[in-house]
Amino acid sequence: MDLAARLRAAIPAEQVLDDPAVVESYLQDHAEWAEFSRAAVVVRPRDTAQVRAVVELAAQLRVPVVPRGAGTGLSGGANAIEGCVVISFEAMNRVLEIDPVERLAVVQPGVVNDDLRTACAALGLWYPPDPASAPWSTIGGNVATNAGGLCCVKYGVTRDYVLALEVVTGRADVVRLGHRTAKGVAGYDLCGLMVGSEGTLGVITEITVRLLPGRPAERTIAGYFDSVVAAGEAVRAVSASGVVPSALELVDRHCLEAVDAWKNMGLSTEANVVLLGRVDTPGEDEARTVLACFENAGATWAAVSSDEQEAEALFDARRLAYPALERLGPVLTEDVCVPKALVPEMLARIEKTAAEHDTLIANIAHAGDGNLHPLLITPIGDEDAKRRAQAAFEDIIADAIELGGTVTGEHGVGLLKRGGLRRELSPAVLELHRAVKAALDPWNILNPGKIFT
Amino acid sequence: MDLAARLRAAIPAEQVLDDPAVVESYLQDHAEWAEFSRAAVVVRPRDTAQVRAVVELAAQLRVPVVPRGAGTGLSGGANAIEGCVVISFEAMNRVLEIDPVERLAVVQPGVVNDDLRTACAALGLWYPPDPASAPWSTIGGNVATNAGGLCCVKYGVTRDYVLALEVVTGRADVVRLGHRTAKGVAGYDLCGLMVGSEGTLGVITEITVRLLPGRPAERTIAGYFDSVVAAGEAVRAVSASGVVPSALELVDRHCLEAVDAWKNMGLSTEANVVLLGRVDTPGEDEARTVLACFENAGATWAAVSSDEQEAEALFDARRLAYPALERLGPVLTEDVCVPKALVPEMLARIEKTAAEHDTLIANIAHAGDGNLHPLLITPIGDEDAKRRAQAAFEDIIADAIELGGTVTGEHGVGLLKRGGLRRELSPAVLELHRAVKAALDPWNILNPGKIFT
Repeated sequence: MDLAARLRAAIPAEQVLDDPAVVESYLQDHAEWAEFSRAAVVVRPRDTAQVRAVVELAAQLRVPVVPRGAGTGLSGGANAIEGCVVISFEAMNRVLEIDPVERLAVVQPGVVNDDLRTACAALGLWYPPDPASAPWSTIGGNVATNAGGLCCVKYGVTRDYVLALEVVTGRADVVRLGHRTAKGVAGYDLCGLMVGSEGTLGVITEITVRLLPGRPAERTIAGYFDSVVAAGEAVRAVSASGVVPSALELVDRHCLEAVDAWKNMGLSTEANVVLLGRVDTPGEDEARTVLACFENAGATWAAVSSDEQEAEALFDARRLAYPALERLGPVLTEDVCVPKALVPEMLARIEKTAAEHDTLIANIAHAGDGNLHPLLITPIGDEDAKRRAQAAFEDIIADAIELGGTVTGEHGVGLLKRGGLRRELSPAVLELHRAVKAALDPWNILNPGKIFT
Repeated sequence: MDLAARLRAAIPAEQVLDDPAVVESYLQDHAEWAEFSRAAVVVRPRDTAQVRAVVELAAQLRVPVVPRGAGTGLSGGANAIEGCVVISFEAMNRVLEIDPVERLAVVQPGVVNDDLRTACAALGLWYPPDPASAPWSTIGGNVATNAGGLCCVKYGVTRDYVLALEVVTGRADVVRLGHRTAKGVAGYDLCGLMVGSEGTLGVITEITVRLLPGRPAERTIAGYFDSVVAAGEAVRAVSASGVVPSALELVDRHCLEAVDAWKNMGLSTEANVVLLGRVDTPGEDEARTVLACFENAGATWAAVSSDEQEAEALFDARRLAYPALERLGPVLTEDVCVPKALVPEMLARIEKTAAEHDTLIANIAHAGDGNLHPLLITPIGDEDAKRRAQAAFEDIIADAIELGGTVTGEHGVGLLKRGGLRRELSPAVLELHRAVKAALDPWNILNPGKIFT
């Protein structure tokens, strides 16, 4: 009996897909360049028991299991492994509970981030983690990659909101990790260990997240700068001022030009670098402080936006940067994170790298926490350009490590950053990773080969 | 050659203590009732290399290692194991770096919590975790137990502030876990795994913590209530209002009476239960909302404190509760955490338990996050009272679990809550704990027998 037939004996047959044309659409995430192989089969479980049955069979047969949310990942973490079972969570997409007093929500892994946020907002509550993929990406994927976003400069990343998880382990046990209470230190933080483990330590089947009261009103401060050095000085000044912005985004000249070429917004004629800050503490003080930081750092223009629509228009330029650049060719998104004060230095090095390898590299950055997204664009089908971009990619990773940074701030290691991880972590730390992996997944069936080999 | 002699060959002789009278003072923490044994020797290393040398020798000889901060723990986590080496961090107490732009501090594990907070405050920065032991307890101990405190209802627990750790592993490797950057997802969150692992997975030798800008000014709201049910309703109302207080503490009648008997503050004639709230968002709105919550829940008196001295006097009653109760006999501090809405139910059950087992149980509680500290007082030398109190202790644990809570909100498992942990976690989860422990500490030398056996 082949794998699909065995799976159809274990869970309802219609949830097991092995039509090659269907399986084809589950083989990769959004990571440019990341390899992927042929999955044997895709399953779409409806509940935890079905996930457990799949993992149990996979464990018996020593077949790799690749959990998959919406496939919006940027490192190849959800890419198929030869002969694997892809577990797609699209049919486990229910918000199970929202409790306004305990301020928590319980969701299935396939719930789309924005759907959870909308459901919370209807009750005057807020789930902060806001990756740029929020309209499509799922909470399960967000947890597996410990996704960041725009507001994490003030409100933290996904890990900071995960209270508890239900997980199917590598031994096909269903376990509950973490706690529903506001605090809890009973035993090791295995819940936290699962967050960001990219499906290699367990398959997440239910997620309990902490919520905040409804999002406070924000003010937007925009600044135009001639140079990344001036913009970087503004970022440093904001950090030193004691204001913690609820967003502090940087958009560079290449992005502005691409957006202008597409939408004709006229941004690139006015600025080389745009900084967009948001603040949300009641009162005018924070906005005034950020504005002064921008002006003192040499902004050629800076203002506090007086209305929400105007502010949204400014953030549109940030949001449009990625699709605008994609019009020029496939975009490989980098994700290094460096100490905040070194953002200008890192941007300068990226500029040098772009020139050295004759590669177009645009930059958007969560500047407030030093998380840069260099975007490497290569014309379709230009293999030589791709080789040059690959070399640039490696240089960016090396520079980030040299500056005391990390190879991945929020996208995860997946396949693309495995080499970077080996450079960033010491052999002893990699050995600890292997020991933990072997302890929790003794048959090496859970997304094997991701993060490290 | 005996252990002390071997250690004196490995690190400077004067840092190895084996005078029984000296060793005696390193054998236990503040956990009433927790067993402890004789340590073979105490070492006071001055740097990471010396810690590594000690762990290496311990690994060779298969001798248990017990790391120790100030010994203020309340679960027996730092208690000596027969024949062990106690590593005391009192000589590793330097603040190595405070960076106002990156907003982080790097400290040795023996730095006292209040000393770090004072050093940060001098630079306009704030390290939020504020366990009641802050004047004495060390950052290393705080990290090992994932300490909470008063302000964690708004600002989170120790784990939320630990960016990176230097750790000596069970194989005597020195490793760096986590990152100095604001974000980072390169590999498993082994840094987070170490936090709260009570010295069983590694010996922490350096800690990098995230800081916040200087603490905002607070307003204090006090409320007197006739019953725990009314006070519980006020807590529920605050949570539902969308205000996140920076502290929300409950002090019950037994505490008020003990404080009055000692300091004659006259509190117990005015209230059966006192709630103390603090808020820190600029403006009057939050204080007004909390006050309304108190009043609508039936407070017999409630007011926003108009000056800081008056507010401090109110918090004195909370701070004095523990020493006031200690005047009546040894105090065993419980640490259950339940869903916020169930605080009144839990308090009612504790009252019933106290009556059933004829045991004096006072309560202070971080009510805002459902973390209760029932204080069980037994007259010195009264063995029968101690047996009754032990039975009450078990009942409290059982009730907390039944209400969906945890056996330890912030003090850790240590020795006292090992039974509770077995009740709270499923066998499969305990098995994961054992697998992780075996993976990271293959010779079982790191604080063995703590958390689980």
